[in-house]
Amino acid sequence: MIILGIDPGTQIMGYGLIEKTCRTSFLPIDYGCIRPPKQLPLPERYCILFEGLETLIDQYKPDVLAIESQFVLKNVQSALKLGMAKGMALLAAARQKMQVYEYTPTRIKSSVTGSGRAGKGQVQYGVQAILRLAALPEPEDAADALAAAICHAQLGVSFV
Amino acid sequence: MIILGIDPGTQIMGYGLIEKTCRTSFLPIDYGCIRPPKQLPLPERYCILFEGLETLIDQYKPDVLAIESQFVLKNVQSALKLGMAKGMALLAAARQKMQVYEYTPTRIKSSVTGSGRAGKGQVQYGVQAILRLAALPEPEDAADALAAAICHAQLGVSFV
Repeated sequence: MIILGIDPGTQIMGYGLIEKTCRTSFLPIDYGCIRPPKQLPLPERYCILFEGLETLIDQYKPDVLAIESQFVLKNVQSALKLGMAKGMALLAAARQKMQVYEYTPTRIKSSVTGSGRAGKGQVQYGVQAILRLAALPEPEDAADALAAAICHAQLGVSFV
Repeated sequence: MIILGIDPGTQIMGYGLIEKTCRTSFLPIDYGCIRPPKQLPLPERYCILFEGLETLIDQYKPDVLAIESQFVLKNVQSALKLGMAKGMALLAAARQKMQVYEYTPTRIKSSVTGSGRAGKGQVQYGVQAILRLAALPEPEDAADALAAAICHAQLGVSFV
């Protein structure tokens, strides 16, 4: 089973792909981020995010999308923007008939660090250790996306 | 110039298309709403909204998208959902190289009723009068979408 984790954002969309080979073994496939140029109008930036995700899905054919559920945000404008970015991920997944799973930030952090209150750095270290990466996964958004994918691999409905 | 107005929502997405034939004359083309079945998972509902908008844009080839800007919302969850629905409209527009214009709710209401604090019913009556529709535009979401399009026709950059 191939899992695509996404850390949605309008400025930077982190992604991480892992393969679950057996109940406890997860192999990294690819990770990184999509950063639409800030000077573009918002609709064009969402278009870049959507088409970037479509390309990733075409290339790696993941079975499921794992994404964070959000409950607390600074203000309405940031919630709207995050919603628009998240919408791109849900749409890209739905168009390819992928299942979508949402996990709380606490559950995701806990699955890679053992603590639901872990900081960004701890998440990066946890992801590096679990996936045996040679280097710390950068940027943080990619590490968060990998963490969402690992969370699903550990907790989600298994159909390996 | 053909203007597509959108009143975004996850449960119901209102749309309204008008043609601006001269500075003060606007003709109605089509209006209505897209309602994805509530029992479907959210990603599939966004897919239906996006593909419905794509079909409308393919059919009528509007030049611009006019949409409401939001500032006040009940809570984070409703802002996230509205953002996801709005993202579908922005993406559908960007994919067809349409320009997108945002107007505040006050400005939109004012352009069809003369008052920025008009109620839903007044907006419906104002839209009916301006477009000389035989019946009150229903549902309210379609009337709001037509109002956004009229607002752009009255205020926006004109390239008739």
